[in-house]
Amino acid sequence: MKKGKGPKTIIIGAGKLAWHLGPALQKAGFRIIQVYSRTLSSAAAFGLHIDVPWTTDVNMLKEDADLVIFCLTDRALEALLPQINLKDVFMIHTAGSVPSNVFEKWTSDFGVLYPLMTFTKTRAIDFRTVPVCIEANNKENEDRLKSIAEKISDNVSAVNFENRKIMHMAAIFACNFTNHMYRAAYDILHHYGFDFGILKPLIMETARKVLEMSPHEAQTGPASRHDKNILCVHQLMLQDQPEWQKIYTFVSESIYQHFQSE
Amino acid sequence: MKKGKGPKTIIIGAGKLAWHLGPALQKAGFRIIQVYSRTLSSAAAFGLHIDVPWTTDVNMLKEDADLVIFCLTDRALEALLPQINLKDVFMIHTAGSVPSNVFEKWTSDFGVLYPLMTFTKTRAIDFRTVPVCIEANNKENEDRLKSIAEKISDNVSAVNFENRKIMHMAAIFACNFTNHMYRAAYDILHHYGFDFGILKPLIMETARKVLEMSPHEAQTGPASRHDKNILCVHQLMLQDQPEWQKIYTFVSESIYQHFQSE
Repeated sequence: MKKGKGPKTIIIGAGKLAWHLGPALQKAGFRIIQVYSRTLSSAAAFGLHIDVPWTTDVNMLKEDADLVIFCLTDRALEALLPQINLKDVFMIHTAGSVPSNVFEKWTSDFGVLYPLMTFTKTRAIDFRTVPVCIEANNKENEDRLKSIAEKISDNVSAVNFENRKIMHMAAIFACNFTNHMYRAAYDILHHYGFDFGILKPLIMETARKVLEMSPHEAQTGPASRHDKNILCVHQLMLQDQPEWQKIYTFVSESIYQHFQSE
Repeated sequence: MKKGKGPKTIIIGAGKLAWHLGPALQKAGFRIIQVYSRTLSSAAAFGLHIDVPWTTDVNMLKEDADLVIFCLTDRALEALLPQINLKDVFMIHTAGSVPSNVFEKWTSDFGVLYPLMTFTKTRAIDFRTVPVCIEANNKENEDRLKSIAEKISDNVSAVNFENRKIMHMAAIFACNFTNHMYRAAYDILHHYGFDFGILKPLIMETARKVLEMSPHEAQTGPASRHDKNILCVHQLMLQDQPEWQKIYTFVSESIYQHFQSE
């Protein structure tokens, strides 16, 4: 087990975020004393991953923890909280769209540490570059949470619940929806026996462009030119992939509407 | 004017692609002897950019060119071709969804050089990394075009018209539609007074992920979990931005459908 001098921490949940947050906290000197997950396989895998004792029994959570970090889906968090029986512990969750006062009934010290990032177990990420939004139930806990967050990230902001929900929603467009467009491209190429690799330089350049200019200035392509011929040809070509045909039509129309109204 | 020993080349069009292709050709030793654009301002700007004589008069095109490269929109290309009066010259266009035989009536040597990339005048791009699809009207011209393309790019493939149209369509999803999702995120943050910058690490990570795994494996977020609560909250939050609300609902449903059918 890795030792450290920082707060004694329990991580609840063994999903993608836990998988990255655990090592980032250990690197920053936190003593992760236990991890919990509902299923044995994920608890054990995560425990081994960060070399920490694991449990699948919520009654076995160690009582001497200073900090409990919940890395759960919204529904799992709400289902689990009533079963947790720890006193005087600082509880934080990591969800974009769950209020901090979900903890109100269970502890007097609580907060939120929401990383604006997409995590995948198999990809390393430098947590220091991850923007982290924090919120706590009072100024003292906010300071405490800020100092925790700043130990793992160089990009920490205090963001209230309403604004955190906005960040979360914008992130869904920028990440999940963007990835779905990659998927359409992947499936279309795959459908015709081509390799997705040929698009990778274009994908990276499209992302890099919006580091330097607004997405509005960066927009190119037939929809922004309202080139009806091409739009029509592509819609026909997608006849046997109706789901992507719908997306093509819908998103093209939205791009055109935005250009027209300017 | 920059001299070179390669083919004497005229570039027709002074848009985003010309702006990048011109310098890439010059760097590879091509002698660009003239540029043409319909408007004086764009012809002059581009001519100055690559230090080459410009014209806005299609009758003034130099007759000793070996190669004429059309960097025009599809409609502009079709409108301009009947006016061009050059003989025995290799004509190529750069469009994703225009057949090569658009040149048939005007020359016996022709082809297509289609770069699978998004170009913006103000951003430098290393053309060597740009995937280039080529096609020509016979084997001899294909070899000629291949050697031209390989002088500027390390990633050249011979792709027929049907397949080039597929590449183009996939590129629209991966680039134009992706950028429209960035734009939604930008507008939503802007609407509430937040800076788009906070999403940049997430945008880069989302793009980098699909260099290593398929977009299907990379997908995260509430739509893929079918978290109806969050979807509903976000739809309500977007009530005063109906265009983005429509996109949110439509794309979320498409993500969910894909996850459900697997």
